[in-house]
Amino acid sequence: MSRTVFINGRFCKPEEATVSIFDRGLLFADAIYEVAGVIDGKLLSFSTHMARLERSLGEMKMKRPMSDEEILATMREMVRLNEVKEGLVYMQITRGSDGDRDFLPKGGAEPTVFMFTQEKSAAETRENDEGIAIVSGPDIRWRRRDIKTVGLMGSVFAKMDAKEAGGAEVLMHEDGFVTECGCTSFYIVKDGTLITRPLSNDILPGCTRKSLLALVAENAVALEERKFTLDEARAADEAFITGASTYICPVTSIDGITLGDGKRGPVTKRLQEIYMDYARADAI
Amino acid sequence: MSRTVFINGRFCKPEEATVSIFDRGLLFADAIYEVAGVIDGKLLSFSTHMARLERSLGEMKMKRPMSDEEILATMREMVRLNEVKEGLVYMQITRGSDGDRDFLPKGGAEPTVFMFTQEKSAAETRENDEGIAIVSGPDIRWRRRDIKTVGLMGSVFAKMDAKEAGGAEVLMHEDGFVTECGCTSFYIVKDGTLITRPLSNDILPGCTRKSLLALVAENAVALEERKFTLDEARAADEAFITGASTYICPVTSIDGITLGDGKRGPVTKRLQEIYMDYARADAI
Repeated sequence: MSRTVFINGRFCKPEEATVSIFDRGLLFADAIYEVAGVIDGKLLSFSTHMARLERSLGEMKMKRPMSDEEILATMREMVRLNEVKEGLVYMQITRGSDGDRDFLPKGGAEPTVFMFTQEKSAAETRENDEGIAIVSGPDIRWRRRDIKTVGLMGSVFAKMDAKEAGGAEVLMHEDGFVTECGCTSFYIVKDGTLITRPLSNDILPGCTRKSLLALVAENAVALEERKFTLDEARAADEAFITGASTYICPVTSIDGITLGDGKRGPVTKRLQEIYMDYARADAI
Repeated sequence: MSRTVFINGRFCKPEEATVSIFDRGLLFADAIYEVAGVIDGKLLSFSTHMARLERSLGEMKMKRPMSDEEILATMREMVRLNEVKEGLVYMQITRGSDGDRDFLPKGGAEPTVFMFTQEKSAAETRENDEGIAIVSGPDIRWRRRDIKTVGLMGSVFAKMDAKEAGGAEVLMHEDGFVTECGCTSFYIVKDGTLITRPLSNDILPGCTRKSLLALVAENAVALEERKFTLDEARAADEAFITGASTYICPVTSIDGITLGDGKRGPVTKRLQEIYMDYARADAI
């Protein structure tokens, strides 16, 4: 099966999907994106992703290129054409090209929108059971981490450094407090209570995070939304990360310090079960 | 005359210059750039730009796609083909495409390199005499502003806000201290002394800044490289910005507060003369 991608209204081969060198996405990282998880060939948390997309467009003062309904139909067609069973659909929207370069956008450009799919790897699926080791590093990103832009080099640098130190993901911190991971939300469990940083401009409002916290409330799991330090994270009983195609992945060590007995903890396992039940039922 | 651009070894029409949707420059802002000024059809401060490019490539751990000599020959050809008298050559280098998306680069990709030219506008030239009004705003950029990456939305946002408030450029500040402008270096003059923030990860090492500070030393102008506050800037006798194609542009007001008599000051004028003499002699 050959890969099919989508760009500006048409489905095509990857090599046919290109953007102008004058596209503001390329010149200024003037672009936002969403990653929708795919489970059993269906889209996960679609309306939550569309709500976040709407917010990103608003914060960026960007034109919307497609309605939610059009995005849904296109994502579903992408899943079908690429025969994705479990994985993701990536969608990026840039402010488009003014035909030249100026920091200030002219305002009349048509947005560029493209999508492609990825299949979840066996290694990623294994990590959901076995957990991962993560390594901490300073959070050097800009102050609007709440907008899902493609200005991602802060995360890329941090993830590169973590990988060199043996980490599958980076745990970013700032002013002594944990912010989040390189491309996932982060949580700790201490004495049966789930703890995660509250939303602000400092972290991304994760869609999986949103679904999970609603499930936590419904299932009477104790929750504290508060800042916590790197030391608190290292001393946690359990920890895990969440993401659109990561779902819930246990963290078994931070900076070489083993959490609990070094295996997926009972709260993490229970939340995985609750979340996956929800996800399969919610996917459309 | 039709515009000619350059991409990956070939000169072509703008509409033929495209990059893959999988290019890391587009997906992660994983790209750096340089803007070389053109004066009298010649390239300004070329070796300084190449030194900064080499540093950017090193900090990004990116492969170099062209030698300095090849870049020089190509930039000169771009100036010739586009008949640029006064303006700039923009060059961007991305980490290229791995054919898919992963925060961690695979490492084998060939960099994407492209260039285009712009002519300096009459309005910009007029600003060099008459000066501009600027407006302050918080510096929300990431912590590696010393690397000239395309992750520029912090500057774009700040410049948009400044424009709405009547500013031709934004004066960014952090923790009470001025950092720099949205896409230019910033300086004040107080009691005959030139004051500018010292280099660090907090600001871009401007090429025009480097040339100017060398000239300042040669011409026995008093210089203080130190942090200064927004209040100090507003109370300055004179202020100006510098950039590759901006050269030295007077600032006549900050946040509506007039500096001096609201016209280009004597130190600014003298430095403009010294700089332009140097620039015309240095251009190759």
